[in-house]
Amino acid sequence: MNSFVELLKSHRSIRKFTEQPIAPELFEELVRAGQGAATSSFLQGATIIRVTDRSKRERIAQLAGNQPYVASAAEFMVFCADLKRAGNWCREYDKPFAGDFTEHFIIATVDVALMAQSMVCAAESVGLGICYIGGIRNNPAAVSELLELPGGVYPVFGLCLGYPAQDPEVKPRLPVSVILKQDRYNEAGDREAIEDYDSAVREYYASRTGGGHGISWSEQVSVLLSEKSRPHMRGFLAGQGFTFK
Amino acid sequence: MNSFVELLKSHRSIRKFTEQPIAPELFEELVRAGQGAATSSFLQGATIIRVTDRSKRERIAQLAGNQPYVASAAEFMVFCADLKRAGNWCREYDKPFAGDFTEHFIIATVDVALMAQSMVCAAESVGLGICYIGGIRNNPAAVSELLELPGGVYPVFGLCLGYPAQDPEVKPRLPVSVILKQDRYNEAGDREAIEDYDSAVREYYASRTGGGHGISWSEQVSVLLSEKSRPHMRGFLAGQGFTFK
Repeated sequence: MNSFVELLKSHRSIRKFTEQPIAPELFEELVRAGQGAATSSFLQGATIIRVTDRSKRERIAQLAGNQPYVASAAEFMVFCADLKRAGNWCREYDKPFAGDFTEHFIIATVDVALMAQSMVCAAESVGLGICYIGGIRNNPAAVSELLELPGGVYPVFGLCLGYPAQDPEVKPRLPVSVILKQDRYNEAGDREAIEDYDSAVREYYASRTGGGHGISWSEQVSVLLSEKSRPHMRGFLAGQGFTFK
Repeated sequence: MNSFVELLKSHRSIRKFTEQPIAPELFEELVRAGQGAATSSFLQGATIIRVTDRSKRERIAQLAGNQPYVASAAEFMVFCADLKRAGNWCREYDKPFAGDFTEHFIIATVDVALMAQSMVCAAESVGLGICYIGGIRNNPAAVSELLELPGGVYPVFGLCLGYPAQDPEVKPRLPVSVILKQDRYNEAGDREAIEDYDSAVREYYASRTGGGHGISWSEQVSVLLSEKSRPHMRGFLAGQGFTFK
């Protein structure tokens, strides 16, 4: 296997970065690599807000649940799903705007994620480290106000980028047999495979410097799905014009 | 810039493939590369259905709006957002299931897209070509029935994979100045930049063998956002348990 495939298999989030800046030419190349990703119906429904203002960085670091690397990484960006840019042209061509269907939300959100992940793959291939920041959805209204996001635009996630100052272990992933199925959805064997995997996850936490919470995958995700998760998102999105028609 | 960044910048969808199969070991490595992608809250909310059954392939090719490469590509997969796998463990740990928030939908959908795009980057790095198939959302209920997708699972997109038998031009992307903003959302200069870009898109269509529809980017997206887009998605998703609380 080539080294790039090996690199992708061993991705880890980086949360400590050196102070080395990213050369502007390199940064632009990475953005272009992101733009190269597929886009549904040619929408190109993603806008990146590169945050360089120190006070905005610090404010977002707080809003995201006190994640200091948001402020300290060489680069921090907010990836936004953007239906406004395209929607502007409805008026221009004298068409009604109807971009508030669930499908439009899916198209734009997927566009953002594909673009970000291509940019991430490019970044890792040149030795940079990354960390996605879903925590910006803790308070999406405040983040949107800070970045002056208009209607038709919503912040999907943040992304820290920089040269790594740590070398964390790779977190084990679910067995391939659990996530890859043939011809139909079929849970045969999954329970046993997940129980083995849970042991591996517990060992991973136990072996880490600093420990971590040490609970298995199944315990972690059962908590995630048994609690209200960012219940403000629906109302926030409606306010930005994403009404899930 | 390294060759991998160049490769990502020049991605094109491939819709004609040779008959060469993908070696099983390689296919599994690509899946593992996909799994390496970041996952929100460690959910790992993606399941891939690899479709090998010929009649299912042909049926999905029809359902997706007659896209013959769905049937003929070496591999075709349906990428599903999956809250069921994790949700099963709520019962196990005696917790109520509450995974029907908008946020859960976003987490799982983004997980799927990040995984798919890492797999795509890995695939392209070994000379394979890919084509995303959003068309499976034309009739998600029929696709779900065919693949026996249970509640808590929805098909986000399909993906064709194979060795390219064509070498299409790269479709021009929006100028970086339009999609990358500094510190705030700001449309200054976008209109002029998009008008120039529209000319480039028209030229791209004019120069292609076969022509294509030849309309500008702004015209295409104004149509997309002025028409109902897959209005069945909301009801279909509700039926699968995604109720956007």
